[in-house]
Amino acid sequence: MELYIHEYFMNEAFKQAKTAFDTGEIPVGAVIVSKNTIIAKAYNQTEMLNDVTAHAEMLAITSAANYLGAKYLNDCRLYVTLEPCTMCGGALFWSQIGEVHYAAKDPKRGYNQCNPSILHPKTKVFQGPMAQEAEQLLLEFFKKLRN
Amino acid sequence: MELYIHEYFMNEAFKQAKTAFDTGEIPVGAVIVSKNTIIAKAYNQTEMLNDVTAHAEMLAITSAANYLGAKYLNDCRLYVTLEPCTMCGGALFWSQIGEVHYAAKDPKRGYNQCNPSILHPKTKVFQGPMAQEAEQLLLEFFKKLRN
Repeated sequence: MELYIHEYFMNEAFKQAKTAFDTGEIPVGAVIVSKNTIIAKAYNQTEMLNDVTAHAEMLAITSAANYLGAKYLNDCRLYVTLEPCTMCGGALFWSQIGEVHYAAKDPKRGYNQCNPSILHPKTKVFQGPMAQEAEQLLLEFFKKLRN
Repeated sequence: MELYIHEYFMNEAFKQAKTAFDTGEIPVGAVIVSKNTIIAKAYNQTEMLNDVTAHAEMLAITSAANYLGAKYLNDCRLYVTLEPCTMCGGALFWSQIGEVHYAAKDPKRGYNQCNPSILHPKTKVFQGPMAQEAEQLLLEFFKKLRN
């Protein structure tokens, strides 16, 4: 049951990533969940907004805080299709988010490249599900971009 | 002459930090300069915007990109009164900003806590001037907060 819930929410994040793909953005999507309800959805919009800070996670954090009327997300879970980068990891630290679930790993730009860990010590991290689908979508995007 | 220029721009960032102080925000200010002209000014607005991502540097990066109509800031210099945090360091990486000048060090939350360095390899970093003034303003803010 618990696993099913995580798959459901990651799939919602994946739908956001597909929207990014369809609009010519690097396909990363995110949702933030509070009490098993999605309170924020976002996809990467760096091209459309002409803004390097407009990653899916950043937009979702701002949106969730706006929804809650509170800037800390202790009771929330982030589902994101790609391991957050250093910027997003730093933002997640400040948000004190309860859980981070990411699908594909990002060995090059992911926050895990940093030592010591930049996330909040209280934040629980889970990798998967849908890692393969998320990675495949990214590979397809960059392949398309090159052609 | 060159030093005078950096002092001038850091003082402009410091003015932003003082505005933050006056509005009850943690006093950090930033300006972004292109061709020796300020193209973006911002101060920390995490309280007012109820958003942990609303650091001075983040707002300045978004504003500068908007001004330039380009998301990369290669020919720009950031002046900020406090060493950028991991989030802002990550954003600066993505922006490929030319130079970062910061005043006070932040051994606890500054991007320098991360290894390897999270800034773009092409970004030149300078510490100072006005480190003491910037630190003093922060100390005064937290002292006031505790009382």
